[in-house]
Amino acid sequence: MAGNSIGQHFRVTTFGESHGVALGCIIDGCPSGLAIDAAQIQHELDRRRPGTSRYTTARREPDSVQILSGVFEGETTGTSIGLLIENTDQRSKDYSAISQLFRPGHADYTYHQKYGVRDYRGGGRSSARETAMRVAAGAIAKAYLKQHLGIEVRGYLSQLGPIKAQQVDWSQVNENPFFFPDEQQLPQLDAFMRDLKKQGDSIGAKITVVASGVPVGLGEPVFDRLDADIAHALMSINAVKGVSIGDGFDVVEQHGSKHRDALTPQGFASNHAGGVLGGISSGQDIIAHLALKPTSSITVPGATIDVDGKATEVVTKGRHDPCVGIRAVPIAEAMLAIVLMDHYLRHRGQNADVQTTTPQLS
Amino acid sequence: MAGNSIGQHFRVTTFGESHGVALGCIIDGCPSGLAIDAAQIQHELDRRRPGTSRYTTARREPDSVQILSGVFEGETTGTSIGLLIENTDQRSKDYSAISQLFRPGHADYTYHQKYGVRDYRGGGRSSARETAMRVAAGAIAKAYLKQHLGIEVRGYLSQLGPIKAQQVDWSQVNENPFFFPDEQQLPQLDAFMRDLKKQGDSIGAKITVVASGVPVGLGEPVFDRLDADIAHALMSINAVKGVSIGDGFDVVEQHGSKHRDALTPQGFASNHAGGVLGGISSGQDIIAHLALKPTSSITVPGATIDVDGKATEVVTKGRHDPCVGIRAVPIAEAMLAIVLMDHYLRHRGQNADVQTTTPQLS
Amino acid sequence: MAGNSIGQHFRVTTFGESHGVALGCIIDGCPSGLAIDAAQIQHELDRRRPGTSRYTTARREPDSVQILSGVFEGETTGTSIGLLIENTDQRSKDYSAISQLFRPGHADYTYHQKYGVRDYRGGGRSSARETAMRVAAGAIAKAYLKQHLGIEVRGYLSQLGPIKAQQVDWSQVNENPFFFPDEQQLPQLDAFMRDLKKQGDSIGAKITVVASGVPVGLGEPVFDRLDADIAHALMSINAVKGVSIGDGFDVVEQHGSKHRDALTPQGFASNHAGGVLGGISSGQDIIAHLALKPTSSITVPGATIDVDGKATEVVTKGRHDPCVGIRAVPIAEAMLAIVLMDHYLRHRGQNADVQTTTPQLS
Amino acid sequence: MAGNSIGQHFRVTTFGESHGVALGCIIDGCPSGLAIDAAQIQHELDRRRPGTSRYTTARREPDSVQILSGVFEGETTGTSIGLLIENTDQRSKDYSAISQLFRPGHADYTYHQKYGVRDYRGGGRSSARETAMRVAAGAIAKAYLKQHLGIEVRGYLSQLGPIKAQQVDWSQVNENPFFFPDEQQLPQLDAFMRDLKKQGDSIGAKITVVASGVPVGLGEPVFDRLDADIAHALMSINAVKGVSIGDGFDVVEQHGSKHRDALTPQGFASNHAGGVLGGISSGQDIIAHLALKPTSSITVPGATIDVDGKATEVVTKGRHDPCVGIRAVPIAEAMLAIVLMDHYLRHRGQNADVQTTTPQLS
Repeated sequence: MAGNSIGQHFRVTTFGESHGVALGCIIDGCPSGLAIDAAQIQHELDRRRPGTSRYTTARREPDSVQILSGVFEGETTGTSIGLLIENTDQRSKDYSAISQLFRPGHADYTYHQKYGVRDYRGGGRSSARETAMRVAAGAIAKAYLKQHLGIEVRGYLSQLGPIKAQQVDWSQVNENPFFFPDEQQLPQLDAFMRDLKKQGDSIGAKITVVASGVPVGLGEPVFDRLDADIAHALMSINAVKGVSIGDGFDVVEQHGSKHRDALTPQGFASNHAGGVLGGISSGQDIIAHLALKPTSSITVPGATIDVDGKATEVVTKGRHDPCVGIRAVPIAEAMLAIVLMDHYLRHRGQNADVQTTTPQLS
Repeated sequence: MAGNSIGQHFRVTTFGESHGVALGCIIDGCPSGLAIDAAQIQHELDRRRPGTSRYTTARREPDSVQILSGVFEGETTGTSIGLLIENTDQRSKDYSAISQLFRPGHADYTYHQKYGVRDYRGGGRSSARETAMRVAAGAIAKAYLKQHLGIEVRGYLSQLGPIKAQQVDWSQVNENPFFFPDEQQLPQLDAFMRDLKKQGDSIGAKITVVASGVPVGLGEPVFDRLDADIAHALMSINAVKGVSIGDGFDVVEQHGSKHRDALTPQGFASNHAGGVLGGISSGQDIIAHLALKPTSSITVPGATIDVDGKATEVVTKGRHDPCVGIRAVPIAEAMLAIVLMDHYLRHRGQNADVQTTTPQLS
Repeated sequence: MAGNSIGQHFRVTTFGESHGVALGCIIDGCPSGLAIDAAQIQHELDRRRPGTSRYTTARREPDSVQILSGVFEGETTGTSIGLLIENTDQRSKDYSAISQLFRPGHADYTYHQKYGVRDYRGGGRSSARETAMRVAAGAIAKAYLKQHLGIEVRGYLSQLGPIKAQQVDWSQVNENPFFFPDEQQLPQLDAFMRDLKKQGDSIGAKITVVASGVPVGLGEPVFDRLDADIAHALMSINAVKGVSIGDGFDVVEQHGSKHRDALTPQGFASNHAGGVLGGISSGQDIIAHLALKPTSSITVPGATIDVDGKATEVVTKGRHDPCVGIRAVPIAEAMLAIVLMDHYLRHRGQNADVQTTTPQLS
Repeated sequence: MAGNSIGQHFRVTTFGESHGVALGCIIDGCPSGLAIDAAQIQHELDRRRPGTSRYTTARREPDSVQILSGVFEGETTGTSIGLLIENTDQRSKDYSAISQLFRPGHADYTYHQKYGVRDYRGGGRSSARETAMRVAAGAIAKAYLKQHLGIEVRGYLSQLGPIKAQQVDWSQVNENPFFFPDEQQLPQLDAFMRDLKKQGDSIGAKITVVASGVPVGLGEPVFDRLDADIAHALMSINAVKGVSIGDGFDVVEQHGSKHRDALTPQGFASNHAGGVLGGISSGQDIIAHLALKPTSSITVPGATIDVDGKATEVVTKGRHDPCVGIRAVPIAEAMLAIVLMDHYLRHRGQNADVQTTTPQLS
């Protein structure tokens, strides 16, 4: 059943295979009057693009986005927005060897069994290449959130393998190809990645995304809580195996007297909750974390079976990232922006009249 | 906007406040011909019911469920199923003291700001009491999954505060009020909870849910992946701050050569993925974990503000669980069952024709 | 698949069989702060209730509605609203004769073939009894539309068999059991119905519903146009076979120079469009018509087959309306109100910022 | 709010303005294994294309469709299908005169007031040009229905202004530019249209669409009835003001003893119902009718206002159809096919297990 859409009110629907003709998406429900152009979207795509550092895939695609509809004289018109990226660098020959077998850790086996047929070229629809359209759509959400609401959505690589960020210096994040927030640890990261490449292996990563300036009230209990929809959106990114909000899994060992964030006339005294209480934004920063598995596209040989169920072996060639987590930072930001945009419109639809005399905290 | 439904094909919609007249739900899309009666649903509700151990709230509600529609002569008819639980033990007086202030760590402040009005009695809609209907609906999903597909959905308390289960003995889980899978650690748990109660404090917990016998093919990429929808469903449970699949956050430090699960003619050689590849079930056990925060309803006084924004203090009286995680085991099972049921029907709708010659692994 | 919900933002989900335990619904997405009580809902239910005239079914049910959640101290709280009507007058014996055959013109055959099982008592879920919950939910929509937006939704019987209303006097509509807008034709209607009853036959009807005070802008092209959603909602009412907007099927023979409604500084010069242009409300009255078939529950014997496919005959006993169209007036009003409410919230969510200097016409 | 999608399981989402860069759509939920290529889609587009007769707009666009994703080696893969048509014949200058006023009978005023901004070139999103993507998506639905289920969806012009088809000869429908089913009346139609063109006026039309070979069981009561969803889909087509099923508005004057279709071991004895009983397909032909208004784009001058609310006059130049109903035949077929496809998958998802011993009628 149709599963290529996300969002109710601000709804993003995508299509496109790794080695097909093009990738595209439709953004439906974007308010009119938003100033947007292709350059703004391109800026976000460039942050995600492969080939920006020596540790990401050498595939070189300009990923040049076109706006096909929904924007007139530099402004959104309220109609559905079509975006398109043509695939230009398709070396399909690379993949013919794997058409009759299933790469372990990939979606080859599950797509084959679910659909009975699969576009094996570069993983087809299951390739991370599909995330380009998430970033493109997210750029529009980000633009609205910033221009109209003053909300900023940012992310960083909080951990790569065993290396945890020791501090978060936002000014550093976009200055290095790792989106890493601690400049001092960069040489360590560099060395780690060099070794990894030598081994032909890959590594997992942890990303943190933060939204600042979010008003109180976003989220629709009991099922479409803001945190539940964030979890859905982030877990839908390729390779993500875990999602958490605020203190996340650390809460397991916490006491209630420590975890609960005191409210004071000056604002919340702490933010263990990660900006969500009862599924509704509290006005504090929304903080979410995601764990990305190490890619299975490595040159270390792996045991597997072929389409007839017989044992065989696979070595993934082609051009791949040793840590897919790195490039996932702009993707995670995009997904968080899409969820916030959707929930802002949902909330406004239902509660535009509400006024309280209680001051808003942050 | 409407947020009280979950599922597309097997859709559960709930209503009800902690101290209102009744709780209820509608299950829409359940196939006809399923043998079901109130006793089966009641059995699951009884597992969740407060008051089953001395460490859960002393509130005593029979939580007696009625089937109002959709079942005829012991079988579902394919029409929408109405379920009802009347609230019988409503001590609303307990809560009048908190009507003018916001309990820290609760949804009081966010509901107040979002809606401008709130039913403060026992937390109203934000109370964990709403999860009774999740369990009721989940009981129907569980019955179908078991009877028609041989799928079993089970859960256990994998960690309570600092105490991690050392082994998983499924035969023990329903034999103790903690849903704990290791009999030998029960005295330790008991002692820990006794101390906690003495302190008037609360503790977090980690739960693991497992579905066995799931066929390959469930999940609708790229957004409605099976794992993304599981994350949504589990994160929508009160107090949950983190959700993970398979190795979860451990993947951050893993290498690809270790993480990827080899396919062999005899089945997968390991299950780091937790039964989901590319957002689609692989035929292996689905394994998900969730982190529950310590409840903020504790007798330790906490700083907060009142509805006018002035500083004050709150002590939560009333009857509360020192570890809400314990009772969440049946709730998490219910949510996983609902997601699997929904995805089974979605998958069948689209792919009922598909046949492959590749044998199904597990 | 789940089909018992209507609306995206203001979503109504219903359950209940004609002779089951109870009927109920959940209204999800209603804004908080609406003053509502059971009496207001009951008032609408009483308008629809069987037994209010000698020409509607003699079944006597108080149809007493209870509000189970979502309302606190006389005001909606923004959470999901549960409504319940218990079935009290269930003479199930009446229907046992038809359990093994299919009444022509009814849903017996299609439910049997679709679901493999059916609750044959009084038509089960396919009975017009389910429309009680539409009226109940519609009462809440009506209350919001009136209190908050000044929108009034009204309907009348515009034709019963060959008898067309010669004039529309709104003050008459609720003064007679036919909801007929022309007092002078009442004796004619009365005579027609008396004859019909004598024949043991039934007759079709046409209903017109009108919404006044609707702001310009409601409707979401290109698929969820206001008129498309109105058509969906009205066609979903039992026995409806046709729906039209404004001049409806008369447009087939019209010229463009006549049909198009001129805009003037004083407002539209005419309303052939029925208040919708390009799928969006124009600020004029929304005018919709629906055609209801004559009920097939008549005492004239009819040819049919039994569950084994063998020819047989059926005479519908029980208590039935000779013209189901009459009671459909409040139902059609309710459905129109639900659609307008839903679209108002959808529009507000997306376009709350929009301001134009062009004056609003009506 | 997002309104550019139709269907739940087989979901079509479209974008594109009359004079924008391109039109496109995403079809999500199409089963894998369907043999499809661009030529099949192009064939349907060519049937709808402007310029095929002297009575439709002179605009000449090849409307050449590209498949961008979801099809691999001639077969659908189960992933989302992207389709694109580039706009090549955009004479935007034609429309600059109307940028500051509202054409009566068009969506100019309502779009302006709803969104605060509009792409006035050729009506922008409100142009019938968007229906090209409906036809393209419908071609895929038609292909599946025919290849996998033997369902045929066909339509014809049943009335143009005062001229009603006297007989329905399916072999004639695609042989004339009017899709008219009675060869003998063609000279009459021709003369009527010639006169109309001379007057600079336009005329309404009635279209009938029929689906044959539909299995019993499609439709999801109580709201997503098959007929309700057909009404929604057909009413969403530009210029449609009425939709009916089977005998439609004629039922108003019918008696129950005449209307109800008798069931016999040899099948239904008649088809007044139009193939739907209780919102579920009966196995008989699905028969739907739609009324299309005369286009307001005529050369007869019309009174209107400008964006400041001042009175003015408009004469629509540009290239327009004097009867938009003619070209709507393939569009209506497409919409019916999409609804049937969606409901087939929905039904199969829920009821794939159901078997009855009652023979299927037709």
